Amino acid sequence: MTSHDPSVVAEKYVEAIRDEVGKLGCKINVVGFIATDDQPSQSYAKATRQKFNEVGISYDLRQVERLELEQAIMEANADSDLHGIFIYFPVFHSQQDSYLRNLVDYRKDIEAGSHYWVRKLYANDRFAIAGDSSRKALLPCTPLAIIKMLTAVGIYKEDVERPIEGRLVTIFNRSEVNGRPLAVMMSNDGAGVYSFDINGPLLFENAKPYEVKITRKEALAQSDIVITGVPHKSFEKIGCDEIRPGTVCVNFSSWPNFEDDIERHTDIYIPKIGPMTVAMCMRNTLRLFRNFHLESHA
Amino acid sequence: MTSHDPSVVAEKYVEAIRDEVGKLGCKINVVGFIATDDQPSQSYAKATRQKFNEVGISYDLRQVERLELEQAIMEANADSDLHGIFIYFPVFHSQQDSYLRNLVDYRKDIEAGSHYWVRKLYANDRFAIAGDSSRKALLPCTPLAIIKMLTAVGIYKEDVERPIEGRLVTIFNRSEVNGRPLAVMMSNDGAGVYSFDINGPLLFENAKPYEVKITRKEALAQSDIVITGVPHKSFEKIGCDEIRPGTVCVNFSSWPNFEDDIERHTDIYIPKIGPMTVAMCMRNTLRLFRNFHLESHA
Repeated sequence: MTSHDPSVVAEKYVEAIRDEVGKLGCKINVVGFIATDDQPSQSYAKATRQKFNEVGISYDLRQVERLELEQAIMEANADSDLHGIFIYFPVFHSQQDSYLRNLVDYRKDIEAGSHYWVRKLYANDRFAIAGDSSRKALLPCTPLAIIKMLTAVGIYKEDVERPIEGRLVTIFNRSEVNGRPLAVMMSNDGAGVYSFDINGPLLFENAKPYEVKITRKEALAQSDIVITGVPHKSFEKIGCDEIRPGTVCVNFSSWPNFEDDIERHTDIYIPKIGPMTVAMCMRNTLRLFRNFHLESHA
Repeated sequence: MTSHDPSVVAEKYVEAIRDEVGKLGCKINVVGFIATDDQPSQSYAKATRQKFNEVGISYDLRQVERLELEQAIMEANADSDLHGIFIYFPVFHSQQDSYLRNLVDYRKDIEAGSHYWVRKLYANDRFAIAGDSSRKALLPCTPLAIIKMLTAVGIYKEDVERPIEGRLVTIFNRSEVNGRPLAVMMSNDGAGVYSFDINGPLLFENAKPYEVKITRKEALAQSDIVITGVPHKSFEKIGCDEIRPGTVCVNFSSWPNFEDDIERHTDIYIPKIGPMTVAMCMRNTLRLFRNFHLESHA
């Protein structure tokens, strides 16, 4: 029986990354910037640092004032001894956070949240540098984590062209960082994806969005997979009566978007994705190092 | 007596731009993308087209579906006969609009809202291409329009290093497109700037932000200039009893953020900035053409 626990699945990735980092024989340095005193964020930051250290990546967790972060990112970009930059968002809770994401040098952007990588994703460009098939592009950590988790539990087929062909998915969240990339990636992999945000639904097919008129109720009743990432208490939790028996349920919000008894109604309920996100972040770090930093260390 | 009417002030810029476009002797082509049926936006779009045409710039106003806009921008970027791209925002009313802004090739970004230009503004980098002092950087249209309007009414001094030295300004709006650039630009020009958004105030001095504890009431009572751009009906309009007599008041929101009787309480009230924004947009178009397109047409 495959584990549905993201901590257990993540551990396999962690082991593989530790092996690869060990074989590299050079030191990878990452800086993590945290600009909040918020206790859950602080705990998450310390846990991230520990995970990176476990695989042999040096992780310098730095507390900065939010108004100093812009300058700190620029200095980290310019520091040739640094290979990766991680930022604990939200910082300003506004469009300014998007500005900060775009400020990170794409060669150090382990979250793959800057325009350079996001644009590649939407253009279905799989290479880090145009025309160089030896260097693979990065994908954003949380969407990638969700797909790897669905792979681990057998929903995503391995080694096929369209690993989720014909499945219907509903995603609540269409942020530029998580929900929209995920909808594009899953529809590119063969699924039909209903994507909901406060402005209403869209349907994604083959990486393209379409206007669609469908209610939450209708979308849920049809879906094989339901993925939620709404960090607002005003979101009406998804109840057992809204989904079909056996629907795969994934929550990546910081708090549950499903009713507590959802587990009894489905075979696969993944209540959090955090440990897999950290694993994918380390995987991205390794990929960036190989793509852009290895030669100068060889 | 100097006019406080942005339409009158804009006309002087329009005349100067018409002269310069005429002297160029080549055709400048701009495309404007509108993805809404909203009537005020449609009217604004048609007015923009007319203004561009008046100065001799060809302006192709194209109605597109919002889900086709990404592709349309990519095609416009690739079209060597096109020299400028304008987008009527909001489109998605979400972070996706910021993605679309960043999709526009900086060499055609007449609004100067993409990361390339925004970053230059925050880095106080005045050149379009690093190290080439013959090509000036672009500034975002609305902040630039406000500063040119303040110059026209004599508040900004001309031909001095710090044209607004020692003045205190309060700005309601700290968006990445308007309020934050404006605060940085005005503080760079010598002003102290209290910047308010829903997350509270910041103080900008010499282009740097500082945490500050001040209420709206306190900031307004000290300010020489008050600038508003809050497109929410929930914003409590600024009343005469909140400002000092003679305070310069500027509103760039789509509806008034000042009480109706504000005019009787101040010498200078500028109720809208739109015509100046369009003029600055044409000025940016000309600058982009000279910076990046002229050689191939010479």
